[in-house]
Amino acid sequence: MEFSSKIIEQAVDAFAQLPGVGKKTALRYVLQIIKQDKNQVEVLSKLLLQLKTDLKFCIKCHNISEQNTCEICLNPSRDETTICVVQDYRDVMAIENTGLYKGRYHVLGGIISPVDGITPSSLNIETLVNKVSEGIVSEIILALNATMEGETTSFYIFRKLAPYNIKLSAIARGIAVGDELEYADEVTLGRSITNRIPFDSLMKK
Amino acid sequence: MEFSSKIIEQAVDAFAQLPGVGKKTALRYVLQIIKQDKNQVEVLSKLLLQLKTDLKFCIKCHNISEQNTCEICLNPSRDETTICVVQDYRDVMAIENTGLYKGRYHVLGGIISPVDGITPSSLNIETLVNKVSEGIVSEIILALNATMEGETTSFYIFRKLAPYNIKLSAIARGIAVGDELEYADEVTLGRSITNRIPFDSLMKK
Repeated sequence: MEFSSKIIEQAVDAFAQLPGVGKKTALRYVLQIIKQDKNQVEVLSKLLLQLKTDLKFCIKCHNISEQNTCEICLNPSRDETTICVVQDYRDVMAIENTGLYKGRYHVLGGIISPVDGITPSSLNIETLVNKVSEGIVSEIILALNATMEGETTSFYIFRKLAPYNIKLSAIARGIAVGDELEYADEVTLGRSITNRIPFDSLMKK
Repeated sequence: MEFSSKIIEQAVDAFAQLPGVGKKTALRYVLQIIKQDKNQVEVLSKLLLQLKTDLKFCIKCHNISEQNTCEICLNPSRDETTICVVQDYRDVMAIENTGLYKGRYHVLGGIISPVDGITPSSLNIETLVNKVSEGIVSEIILALNATMEGETTSFYIFRKLAPYNIKLSAIARGIAVGDELEYADEVTLGRSITNRIPFDSLMKK
């Protein structure tokens, strides 16, 4: 694409750095920005800088936080013996929204994906092992995506933590609540049957 | 969605103002920004402000420009008697990239769409009529999208300009170059046949 203006070209290139944004989409964004109120654009411009200056990664769990330690890690009512391992901030948000988890988190910052150049050393796995080696943690729940990369990462962490005397679990895979059996894929349905749960334990919830 | 941080929430809301961006996509962008180099984010932040301060709409054709009058309108080698009417900047770019048009443009800034609240009076149609009434223009080429809104706008402009003694044309609709006949829809194929062109005129191009 050839642009008549250097500023438009540079802005398109900058927007095209965002995930899933190509040059055509970036140009749509740029044209929208040009049409927007000056106030609105100034707000977005300032917020971008604030995202970099005001946000940190929690020194304990690597979650995004406004302080050095995040609110969940600072909260004394959250069980520090249970740690849920997730890929990123969005997963913490999703689990928090269920209101059913009262332990702490450990945010990996990604999942192992050699194709994208993400190796175990580029993730926060070392600090997880250190945390476990301190002896306070009694259970680790792996809550990673049910994709090949997610399972690979889960298995890698499982092997790293195997020497320690802790309970290691993974979130249940199965038919989603509200889904119909006949439309479920075989792998998911198979796992649902293998990992069946005593009916009376369901009644208690 | 509930966010743990006010800044993230505000940034998500600001990104969600962009066309086609929902809250989930906005959050992906925000997380990417947090991961990016501080330099990169500062560049984007500054460019946003520049888009508002350094860009103007050309006083002659309403195209986006760094000066009061755009480069195309200032270029004496561009034929000022022929004006191509387009929806927005992207269409000017697309036609310029063909390298086959040597006239000037008139950018409407949208197309008539009552559903979205866009009426003829919110578009740059008045200035087009004024331009034509000055008597220099001899041909208007309507180059609007082949959608219902585009055709409506073309027809509206056609009626507005009918009283003037100028040539009024619309860009050709037909089978795209490289497309196979059997996959074309009937309306397009029908128009291709109705608007067939003498073969020897094709050979000259």
